[in-house]
Amino acid sequence: MNSFVYDIPTRVYFGPDQLDNLGKEVSAFGKKALLCYGGGSIKKSGLYDRVMAQLKAAGMEVFELSGIDPNPRVSSVNAGADICKKEKIDVLLAVGGGSVLDCTKYIGAAAYYDGDGWDILLDKVPVEQCLPIVTVLTLAATGSEMDSGGVISNPETKDKIGRMFPPMQPKVSFLDPTETYSVSKYQTACGSSDILSHLLEIYFVPEGGSMYMLDCFMEGMIKTVMKYAPIAMEQPDHYEARANLMWTSSWAINGFAGALQNCEWTCHPIEHELSAIYDITHGLGLAIVTPRWMRYVLDVTTAHRFYQYGVNVFGIDPSLPEMEVAEKSIEMTADFLFGKLGLASTLTEIGIDDSNFDIMAEKACGGGILQGYKPLNREDIRKILTMCL
Amino acid sequence: MNSFVYDIPTRVYFGPDQLDNLGKEVSAFGKKALLCYGGGSIKKSGLYDRVMAQLKAAGMEVFELSGIDPNPRVSSVNAGADICKKEKIDVLLAVGGGSVLDCTKYIGAAAYYDGDGWDILLDKVPVEQCLPIVTVLTLAATGSEMDSGGVISNPETKDKIGRMFPPMQPKVSFLDPTETYSVSKYQTACGSSDILSHLLEIYFVPEGGSMYMLDCFMEGMIKTVMKYAPIAMEQPDHYEARANLMWTSSWAINGFAGALQNCEWTCHPIEHELSAIYDITHGLGLAIVTPRWMRYVLDVTTAHRFYQYGVNVFGIDPSLPEMEVAEKSIEMTADFLFGKLGLASTLTEIGIDDSNFDIMAEKACGGGILQGYKPLNREDIRKILTMCL
Repeated sequence: MNSFVYDIPTRVYFGPDQLDNLGKEVSAFGKKALLCYGGGSIKKSGLYDRVMAQLKAAGMEVFELSGIDPNPRVSSVNAGADICKKEKIDVLLAVGGGSVLDCTKYIGAAAYYDGDGWDILLDKVPVEQCLPIVTVLTLAATGSEMDSGGVISNPETKDKIGRMFPPMQPKVSFLDPTETYSVSKYQTACGSSDILSHLLEIYFVPEGGSMYMLDCFMEGMIKTVMKYAPIAMEQPDHYEARANLMWTSSWAINGFAGALQNCEWTCHPIEHELSAIYDITHGLGLAIVTPRWMRYVLDVTTAHRFYQYGVNVFGIDPSLPEMEVAEKSIEMTADFLFGKLGLASTLTEIGIDDSNFDIMAEKACGGGILQGYKPLNREDIRKILTMCL
Repeated sequence: MNSFVYDIPTRVYFGPDQLDNLGKEVSAFGKKALLCYGGGSIKKSGLYDRVMAQLKAAGMEVFELSGIDPNPRVSSVNAGADICKKEKIDVLLAVGGGSVLDCTKYIGAAAYYDGDGWDILLDKVPVEQCLPIVTVLTLAATGSEMDSGGVISNPETKDKIGRMFPPMQPKVSFLDPTETYSVSKYQTACGSSDILSHLLEIYFVPEGGSMYMLDCFMEGMIKTVMKYAPIAMEQPDHYEARANLMWTSSWAINGFAGALQNCEWTCHPIEHELSAIYDITHGLGLAIVTPRWMRYVLDVTTAHRFYQYGVNVFGIDPSLPEMEVAEKSIEMTADFLFGKLGLASTLTEIGIDDSNFDIMAEKACGGGILQGYKPLNREDIRKILTMCL
């Protein structure tokens, strides 16, 4: 069993009435805030006004960076960093979903760097400092509110890169499940698919099974997504469903459950190539890739873990043969994603053909071996992509 | 569903090779450390030497307070605080089980107070500051390594009081499961009983069931204790068993799983009166009290929660009548504590009669109502104690 360091210092205010603490928390870091957000849905929902009221009451001077895209771009990182340098910003406030939060993290890091923010993604410069980050989450999906990672796209090079740097960990995050009531049925499905993928990426690892208490927690979170995503899609203002999905989104990826991870992730790097080129929703790409990856890596050496997953998550009869349970667990995963969540089940269905598979496969494994649950080379990844057509 | 604040900033180094980071972490807080420990078992095990080597290599000046008792006394708190004031201590290092950690927390708080440390327990003075605390844990039980609470005894008044103050939260904790290999069969049983009780105290609450993902985690941790405690008792050096118990001890009580707690604890206050007067091991007292408390609070209004517990933890047939499952779940809890763990099942067996029941019942409810899963007055508590004879 591996050793690990647990270190998740983010303070989280969870619940519908917690935004009253925003002004106090943000102003603890200084007087000048940069408010970062996306396309303006927070203005429609009234959240923008409530956030501004809190900041004004706390005596903050507020600057703004809006228009951060889904699959956020390096141009937004650079634009935000420029404001930070010019206005001597003390604290960043990200209000939105994972894209806004991810972008804000790199703004905070790039504020201490004079070159192109993309250099940080290329690992050309170390991230030793970051402006303090406070987040107000509006979508349960990426877990960015409680981890130190983020993913940025570069449309010029058609690259999409994710990295983790401890200084980018949010200091405080506000999670109000009622803010996700307005998330559409489709985006709720995509967010849930993203959460599920985070859980499967940490569940299917070579050390899997050595920490039973974490296995129970991961299986519990997978069951939580499967139980509540369909409810939230049908009843958008179902508090219990939204609350369970939101808190699970944070804990699926904050490092606690995945402490024993001793391999690279697989579906995420493959999906990043899809959304880098075709700008599709991350959770949709993951849904299409995941069951194919599962089928591809299932063999006699991995079947035991799929068996455990099938029995504990889906309640499949444990007396059935191991391989039969394993195969059924993959079928049931696909049924959830394409049936219950109603997501498109093939790349063909969303207009993607095999014309970029070679370059995508090459990039997903960095030209070498993707050291995942089972190591995959470019040929393996190309085969998985072909299974997705 | 209640709102809550999640805030657990303790950094945890988990695993057999992590003590190498001790010097670096302790010396980050200053040059003068007070090393707090118990009866000297850490000298026999070699842990004392390894800790001292780390501190010396980091250039620390080390003072010592040894002899901290199980059920730690306020006299140790005052002795430690005196050293802190006289020597201008920068950082406290607690090496031991929950008793040593609890005592060290109050030393850190009392270092900022000129009166008797017992005043802090009596809530006469607020705890706004505490010396930074680093812990090295040698027993999986109380969870003190990752929370801000602690329990202190006053032999003169025969009181035992527990409180929580955020400044007392350890900054860094070192959890090495191999350090618990030398814990005796009996102490392993008592520690496991303590962990189980923490989980049951947060599982049986009026809001229970509204956060499914936390329910799954709590049930998973209960199953972890039941699975691994007997293994650790039979094979003291079983790493997987010791690691699962140790990490579960922290997460049973650090505030995450119990975030929705909206009532007082019940078995702990009752047990504190037992160990305050008779100085019995905390986990043993909890084992005797817990199944009686369960039987006492089981009725048609609470049976649904016992049903869920019985089905999800013990795998009892869900098609049986609710009350039958509930009763069976209590029987199986008792079987675990008195059968698998082999703990004494009655107060009579350990030489305790009813002569102090009146005063114990009175103190446990503070002379009023103990607002637990079901509110209990002194008569209720006296009845529960009588069931324990």
